[in-house]
Amino acid sequence: MTRPFVFEKPLGMRDTLPLLYDLKTSIREKIQHVTETWGYRFMNTPTLEYYETVGEASAILDQQLFKLLDQRGNTLVLRPDMTAPIARVAASSLKKEPFPLRLAYDSNVYRAQEDEGGKPAEFEQIGVELIGDRTTSADAEVIALMAAVLKEAGLENFQIAIGHVGFIQELFLSIVGNEDRAAVLRRYLYEKNYVGYRQHVREMPLSSIDQKRLMDLLTLRGDGSKLSDAIELLPTEAGERVLDELRTLIQTLEAYGVADQVKFDFTLVSHMSYYTGVVFEGYANELGVPLSNGGRYDELLSRFDRPAQATGFGIRLDHLAEALGLTGDEKLPDAIIFSPERREEAIQQASERRAQGEKVVMQELSGITNLDEYSERFDDVVYMIGKNGKGTL
Amino acid sequence: MTRPFVFEKPLGMRDTLPLLYDLKTSIREKIQHVTETWGYRFMNTPTLEYYETVGEASAILDQQLFKLLDQRGNTLVLRPDMTAPIARVAASSLKKEPFPLRLAYDSNVYRAQEDEGGKPAEFEQIGVELIGDRTTSADAEVIALMAAVLKEAGLENFQIAIGHVGFIQELFLSIVGNEDRAAVLRRYLYEKNYVGYRQHVREMPLSSIDQKRLMDLLTLRGDGSKLSDAIELLPTEAGERVLDELRTLIQTLEAYGVADQVKFDFTLVSHMSYYTGVVFEGYANELGVPLSNGGRYDELLSRFDRPAQATGFGIRLDHLAEALGLTGDEKLPDAIIFSPERREEAIQQASERRAQGEKVVMQELSGITNLDEYSERFDDVVYMIGKNGKGTL
Repeated sequence: MTRPFVFEKPLGMRDTLPLLYDLKTSIREKIQHVTETWGYRFMNTPTLEYYETVGEASAILDQQLFKLLDQRGNTLVLRPDMTAPIARVAASSLKKEPFPLRLAYDSNVYRAQEDEGGKPAEFEQIGVELIGDRTTSADAEVIALMAAVLKEAGLENFQIAIGHVGFIQELFLSIVGNEDRAAVLRRYLYEKNYVGYRQHVREMPLSSIDQKRLMDLLTLRGDGSKLSDAIELLPTEAGERVLDELRTLIQTLEAYGVADQVKFDFTLVSHMSYYTGVVFEGYANELGVPLSNGGRYDELLSRFDRPAQATGFGIRLDHLAEALGLTGDEKLPDAIIFSPERREEAIQQASERRAQGEKVVMQELSGITNLDEYSERFDDVVYMIGKNGKGTL
Repeated sequence: MTRPFVFEKPLGMRDTLPLLYDLKTSIREKIQHVTETWGYRFMNTPTLEYYETVGEASAILDQQLFKLLDQRGNTLVLRPDMTAPIARVAASSLKKEPFPLRLAYDSNVYRAQEDEGGKPAEFEQIGVELIGDRTTSADAEVIALMAAVLKEAGLENFQIAIGHVGFIQELFLSIVGNEDRAAVLRRYLYEKNYVGYRQHVREMPLSSIDQKRLMDLLTLRGDGSKLSDAIELLPTEAGERVLDELRTLIQTLEAYGVADQVKFDFTLVSHMSYYTGVVFEGYANELGVPLSNGGRYDELLSRFDRPAQATGFGIRLDHLAEALGLTGDEKLPDAIIFSPERREEAIQQASERRAQGEKVVMQELSGITNLDEYSERFDDVVYMIGKNGKGTL
């Protein structure tokens, strides 16, 4: 091990400099405003949780967890997501509040990276959880809200891909017969490794009809017409139920005016193992990675002794900021540069202008090393130098 | 070690429920606005830093650091303060920006607690750093800004105690002769253990005059008249310099209109070992602990290879929120409770009202377990049940 250089940061850790900070603040405020008008209440949970409670429930891969030991020998984790901690709160501090609960968060989450591949190990997630509501109206609400906040944030071109984990699971189990084999297939889909999926399917000891059904799953991506294709693949009662659910969902999304942004993708499997039903991901034209995702998780709350169906989404603020881009230059403040004799006059003028909401830096002349270079950082500079305003530079 | 109960949180870790979250948001926005009008630029740094860079520079006691190992065997810490990380950024990413730099932050910091004594192990700090300015105008600016943000946040009664670490250090060295002995005395002051200080002074092999000087230091707390008392204790050139500096400081604070909130306290020693000059703490009448503190740290930046004088402050948002108190009840949103036949009508009404900034929850009737209990959570409830509005409950 080598001693880190004095400026170095740990793997995947980033500074947020003022220009990006201001962009994120502006996006965050818009998202929070819209989310609040939909009746969601923001809350927060601690950065550190017990591994054995929230850590294990979070379903993030173990090697992605930042772990440490407390003085009592318990393993702690830096929270890898917010859904599990909010489930904990819904089942404890908010136990007396009746379902459905509408909660929101804006928090950093942590995922250890193994190399400097450019992935951040800490990122800000803004999201909602709608807990205790099994209706398709609830699924539609969180998707419509996600679309509304992306639009309010200024994102003009985005798509939302909708899938259904229950459908995939039914299809896989009906063909391959057990969970272990189904999990292998899900893993290929999760990794979006369709070549590997096809090869694996070809090597499985299945009838050619069943092999074709598994292959045809990969074609279930597109508009509403894919719904009828889906039912052909899974012509069972469970399949019908999913189809009805998705028909209601798309009708409701039409009423919300967001159907144009939506397409179906029955291959969609989120990384969160706790999803059980409708799942979705948001994409911006400009980005190769999803900037948001979510779905229904009807089993998680039972881990915290308050069983409830639930759905929600999370938006990655870093990806959204990247999709929106830094617009133009930093708006520079004004400056008043003064000498001690005129300090009081400078304070008075600065106070008056700040009270009007103007950004005004006050700077004593002798605190500046290089005046030319320093002045460039401001839009306008007022000099108050020497007695009675007669001083010159 | 016992397995933690499913709802348990690690020692000193807290949830922030919606009511407190909203109070903190409101305070945070006011503080950020004022800070920005003074020309400070907000930024952020990562939660995790290397122990050997920022961890050691932070001067928080080692046993208060949350430590973990990364895959390469380096020790990481959860940042215990923001001053050292911002010094790192000022000396690296912002190296090309001319001094003075005015930076601000609003970030969680972490200090491990040894028992459930009620102290949080994670808390939000809002603060500023004014880097590269040795003038007393800079000291006055950060104190005046701290007063301005506390006032804007709604705090009516607060005091700011001002001391001078350089003065104490000069006095101690001139009497006890070396840093080790001076450090013992400073530790008593830091712990505010004046009984222990007195006893220790009595037991030191000093002339009665020097013992009296050390005892008299404890009386240097009060208004501006304490300045002349201070010079009597340290009638040296260094003493004169400190006195001049503090006279200019108090005059400048008068010009800012905050002199009424200020008193001197020459016994003030902050926990941060890197302070070198003027130090200060903010108190609210309602609280037994300081809610903010700050001071001049002229040596820290040299650890990051960009030597510079600097000053700044940090406000603990939890203490400030406690001093302000939760005002009244949560403002409840309205709700539209609908059945599927009238979903589109409900969406339309909700959309229109949300666009006006109203908080409106939409809830499908069949998602509610207990309607009476649920409806109580809203200010007003509109029912859209059954076809054509003819349905009844």
